[in-house]
Amino acid sequence: MNQSPVPPPSTDRVQVAIVGVGLIGGSLAAALKARHIAAKVIGVGRNISRLESAQSLGLIDVATTDIAYAAQNADLIVFCTPVDLIAQGVEAAVAAGSPQLLLTDVGSVKGTIAREVGALLPAGKNFIGSHPLAGSERNGFENSDADLFEGKTCIITPCPWNSEEHTVRLTKFWESVGSSVLRMTPDEHDRKLAQTSHLPHVLAAALATILEEENHAIAATGFRDSTRIAAGDPDLWVAIILGNAQSIVESIDGFSDQLAEFRAAIEKGDAATLKKLLDVAKTNRDALS
Amino acid sequence: MNQSPVPPPSTDRVQVAIVGVGLIGGSLAAALKARHIAAKVIGVGRNISRLESAQSLGLIDVATTDIAYAAQNADLIVFCTPVDLIAQGVEAAVAAGSPQLLLTDVGSVKGTIAREVGALLPAGKNFIGSHPLAGSERNGFENSDADLFEGKTCIITPCPWNSEEHTVRLTKFWESVGSSVLRMTPDEHDRKLAQTSHLPHVLAAALATILEEENHAIAATGFRDSTRIAAGDPDLWVAIILGNAQSIVESIDGFSDQLAEFRAAIEKGDAATLKKLLDVAKTNRDALS
Repeated sequence: MNQSPVPPPSTDRVQVAIVGVGLIGGSLAAALKARHIAAKVIGVGRNISRLESAQSLGLIDVATTDIAYAAQNADLIVFCTPVDLIAQGVEAAVAAGSPQLLLTDVGSVKGTIAREVGALLPAGKNFIGSHPLAGSERNGFENSDADLFEGKTCIITPCPWNSEEHTVRLTKFWESVGSSVLRMTPDEHDRKLAQTSHLPHVLAAALATILEEENHAIAATGFRDSTRIAAGDPDLWVAIILGNAQSIVESIDGFSDQLAEFRAAIEKGDAATLKKLLDVAKTNRDALS
Repeated sequence: MNQSPVPPPSTDRVQVAIVGVGLIGGSLAAALKARHIAAKVIGVGRNISRLESAQSLGLIDVATTDIAYAAQNADLIVFCTPVDLIAQGVEAAVAAGSPQLLLTDVGSVKGTIAREVGALLPAGKNFIGSHPLAGSERNGFENSDADLFEGKTCIITPCPWNSEEHTVRLTKFWESVGSSVLRMTPDEHDRKLAQTSHLPHVLAAALATILEEENHAIAATGFRDSTRIAAGDPDLWVAIILGNAQSIVESIDGFSDQLAEFRAAIEKGDAATLKKLLDVAKTNRDALS
């Protein structure tokens, strides 16, 4: 783990509320602590004893089940809850918070939330979606990593009703935990992530599903890497996948067309075509390294 | 890297020839050296200057392009060449070697080689296929790892014409470099590996292929893990895939049926079915960890 930079404490540090202190929320709390970014971190959740455990680990300063309390005391609220619970959380927080309160989330789909929050206007105007491309198949704040966001990309998805001032504040916030920020529209985000994240998840799940039990012992590194993300939380992924269903179905169809090209070359024993297909795949994959 | 056990040198150590000193052949040479298993390691290849580099790194004791020399001086020959070159290598080696010479390979398909070697009977009777489930997307002996086989499974595929004595010798050889040995028929191997290795390779390649260039920057860990094996050498993989085409096409079809179930649930917005599918996938994947 890299040593995080430790700037001197300043008097203008913000108070940050994190709703949903799991792996991502806990890691964000840890990053804010390690970098002395927040004057206070307020952890919000439904299970007070879990929150008190996070507090005793030093991840959060205050543990509460009261979103209104958090909204009244924070400059920024970050929703780290499942994607289907974010809009209702925003609605409750805005009702209690000051007009300056900035709200964001870390959800893996953005279009649905943007439409739900857009329907709350003007109350929803201080919410801007975020998606830090940093995750893990592990769960729980016990696996928190203060460097989870370091060197990663964070996509933010401002809408026409958001102010530039809020967009800049949010950008600086993610930069302060080590991320590079990319801006795009919520729908652009969802089309892109369908290809880079949601489709791979569905493929990994389908591949893990068909593995016969008698073949477990010979499923080596390649199989394990290809299916690692299938170990992710099914409830979280139902919400993500159904929150971006149309783009994912289109991505599955594009993938199936490509797979059919491989299948045809293999069935015909067409070495030249198969070589070309594998060359393109390798070139694309190598470009990521 | 674990410390390899170092037994005292014994006078009955074998001479081993390795044909094709790349990543796997070089790692095998390194393992034989580190564990003092071989009295002498003979490296065989087409490019003498590459072999001399491997010799100067201490991986092999002798560098030669002459398979007959290797066959005359070795107790065991291990072919680490591409799978479509193994049968012809076996034929050349058997013509020059003693009747006690044991021959094996490390290829990822076994049925085609078994049939090709079976056609050389009685000359081919001392060849037994091996497939150590240990690989890497990297290439070249420069990436050799003396512990590559440690804790891994090695499948061996004796045929009715092989002697039990040879099968036991081969088993002990792989155990001596740290592997656990599984015995099965060549065709059984190929059906199983179609599912656990060759299908995942084709899926990774198809997924890597459809990644649009503008999305490279947001292809995060999940995408990278899912497509890692697509960086493998296309020439090697053409030979592997076309050497097991029928089983792979069947595996692609089984996978496509499973993917269609996911697609239908996603298109319908059927959360209950999608949850069930993801639960099975997670259970299967967790069983591998």
